Amino acid sequence: MLKIAVCGLGTVGKSFVDHFIKYQDLISKNCGQEIEIAIIADRSIDKKKFNHDSIEFSSDILSVIDSDCNLIIELIGGCEIALQLVKKAIQNKKSVITANKALIAEHGDELFELSKKNKVYLGFEAAVAGAVPIINSLTHNMLNENILSISGIVNGTCNYILDQMSSDNKDFSEALKNAKELGYAEADPTFDIGGFDAAHKISILAMLAYNIKSPYKNMHIEGIESIETMDIDYATELGYKIKHIALAKRTNSQIECRAHPVLIHQTNILSNIDGVMNAVSTRGDRFGTSLLYGHGAGGDATASAVVSNISDYCNFSHKDLDRYSKKDTNDELVNVMNINDICSQYYLRIFANDVPGVMAEVTSTLASHKISIEAVTQHEPLKDDKLIPIVMITNSVSYKSILSSINTIESLDNISGKINLIRVFNDND
Amino acid sequence: MLKIAVCGLGTVGKSFVDHFIKYQDLISKNCGQEIEIAIIADRSIDKKKFNHDSIEFSSDILSVIDSDCNLIIELIGGCEIALQLVKKAIQNKKSVITANKALIAEHGDELFELSKKNKVYLGFEAAVAGAVPIINSLTHNMLNENILSISGIVNGTCNYILDQMSSDNKDFSEALKNAKELGYAEADPTFDIGGFDAAHKISILAMLAYNIKSPYKNMHIEGIESIETMDIDYATELGYKIKHIALAKRTNSQIECRAHPVLIHQTNILSNIDGVMNAVSTRGDRFGTSLLYGHGAGGDATASAVVSNISDYCNFSHKDLDRYSKKDTNDELVNVMNINDICSQYYLRIFANDVPGVMAEVTSTLASHKISIEAVTQHEPLKDDKLIPIVMITNSVSYKSILSSINTIESLDNISGKINLIRVFNDND
Repeated sequence: MLKIAVCGLGTVGKSFVDHFIKYQDLISKNCGQEIEIAIIADRSIDKKKFNHDSIEFSSDILSVIDSDCNLIIELIGGCEIALQLVKKAIQNKKSVITANKALIAEHGDELFELSKKNKVYLGFEAAVAGAVPIINSLTHNMLNENILSISGIVNGTCNYILDQMSSDNKDFSEALKNAKELGYAEADPTFDIGGFDAAHKISILAMLAYNIKSPYKNMHIEGIESIETMDIDYATELGYKIKHIALAKRTNSQIECRAHPVLIHQTNILSNIDGVMNAVSTRGDRFGTSLLYGHGAGGDATASAVVSNISDYCNFSHKDLDRYSKKDTNDELVNVMNINDICSQYYLRIFANDVPGVMAEVTSTLASHKISIEAVTQHEPLKDDKLIPIVMITNSVSYKSILSSINTIESLDNISGKINLIRVFNDND
Repeated sequence: MLKIAVCGLGTVGKSFVDHFIKYQDLISKNCGQEIEIAIIADRSIDKKKFNHDSIEFSSDILSVIDSDCNLIIELIGGCEIALQLVKKAIQNKKSVITANKALIAEHGDELFELSKKNKVYLGFEAAVAGAVPIINSLTHNMLNENILSISGIVNGTCNYILDQMSSDNKDFSEALKNAKELGYAEADPTFDIGGFDAAHKISILAMLAYNIKSPYKNMHIEGIESIETMDIDYATELGYKIKHIALAKRTNSQIECRAHPVLIHQTNILSNIDGVMNAVSTRGDRFGTSLLYGHGAGGDATASAVVSNISDYCNFSHKDLDRYSKKDTNDELVNVMNINDICSQYYLRIFANDVPGVMAEVTSTLASHKISIEAVTQHEPLKDDKLIPIVMITNSVSYKSILSSINTIESLDNISGKINLIRVFNDND
């Protein structure tokens, strides 16, 4: 009999317990052994209306370490008590399944080593893109491949807000309000809309795909706060949609790892990922392009990924540990590229006074920085404004070049305010 | 040292050998043991310009059974020598990896039992949709789920032809010619364009998702031969694309399993799967909608799936066998539904004489069969023709009802020729 302890009875915890109990017979059969939830631990368990005769309830999370449960399911989130719990569990030879992306992105290096040393299973399919089976694919199907790049729409909140701004013509704050009402955004949405959640997720994928330590602390992160409805409209005119993308790519001993908004051409399948849906596109030198799409968040989808790890655990052999922690390449050789050196095409939205020669000033400034223009559109002044919006798409140049040219352009007399800059997604990423 | 025998050195065989040799060190490392290709057997090996010092070559395929190879990779195709080889290999306690969809769809029931009895591994990720990791997802991630339905674009030839007819306005024969020139269609394309290849693939997915014997022999199969460019144009007007879909769905003790063209609404992500790409959409009661997209055919993508099975084999325990052959449900209770009883909306394209009252005759015939019309468009006569095309989309009715009403309509004096009937894809499938 395998006994499970569930720690954290929030949305995902409740969905997991519900899924597990409903399919307990099937899960036991698929795992070749009887399995039961023996303990549910949650700091405010007393306030939660949840009863089940055969389950022990506890408000002392760390108490599960001393229980006879062999598998701890961590659904608390964050890096405080969750980190303490997971470390102690592994040190006590208990296997762990977690849905906690912050934990793996920020402490995965240590936890992978620890689980390898203690020969226990550490499953985290739910940590990236919920029910999208990207962890399983990377660590099984794509294990013997040269992964050229991974790009994903992995934050449902950002994708929902951008989709609402695009399809319903809402402005950012309206779309955010709507997302909160529907439970797609937290009361404090900073972590999602600031790009940090997507950054955690791509860090985990980069670790697995490139066999490196977590790039999280050295990666470039931008959120979607500066995207305005007009940017979405101008992008549409040029054949693009605006999405928030997380991307990892290896070039020799360098890793690109970044999370930021992009213009994606409407012919790219990633531009069709709407609403709260998630998708991860992976390119390999052999299998070509692969895209996995599904529900990235929500109790049931996340719980489904947690449940999938239970059968992994039951079929686990210590050889599997190498899938996650085969870090015998020399990590020192792998650097996360400085964003300043990464080249990209850029979308620029510039407000200018409607006077003769302003376009010439802008274009000659770009030319003096050796930046050429692939597309340009000039628009009517916005309502109640005398400024004209100029929209440009540049050729591929480094971030430091574009920043330096933007500084110069912003200082021109006939240019008003800050220029909005968004990267253009390269279809080969 | 694990020794592998590769049987069949066609396109996939060559790509596999190339992939394996290039990544041999990585594969060995990921598998935790040294692995090598010891033998390559192909009936016309003498004619194939392939040399490798450490590999033995043989034109006697069945000779690998008596070799010291523990893993046989069957890349011959078809159900003659391949079936003989795979059965003998398993009976001789050798594990098998195959890319052969016909073999698994038509003889999988027997082979699963045989591999279970002999406790050997049988991998077939490459048999369905090439590098799309659908077998791994169904047998791992989605193992403890209630799969509501699976629908896939799993034949690249059909998808390429329909895409060419749609985006390049080619007619069927032109698109087929083009597909042949590009190597996307065989010299005799019947198996692909007739829907049989897609039927094999959905049969395999249905076996895994619903724990049933292969439905292949009892399923409904239609190809794309009767789709004309005008159907694609009329579908576009109504907001649809035409795709060839394979579908499996369980309702109580009944399985729907079928492969045929459909109209898919342009808002459904499956409608965006273009060119030779494959995609499989799965719906579960917990994880919601999942879509896996990638290269479904071609040497490298197929070989990639074969390679992925090598690490599965190395991590294989006999418990894994249950994933494929947990057939202790009473199969007798599961029937493949007769297509006549399956309900669907239909697209009808009818040629009528341009005389008053003809539309009334058609609609009243449908009404007398209790079929209502959801959309109707009447078009100008085609060039050099006096007949007017009438296009209708019906409500959801059984196939036998629609066939019977079509028979009556075709017998009307003012109706000319056969009515073209295409199912409309239900977004809940």
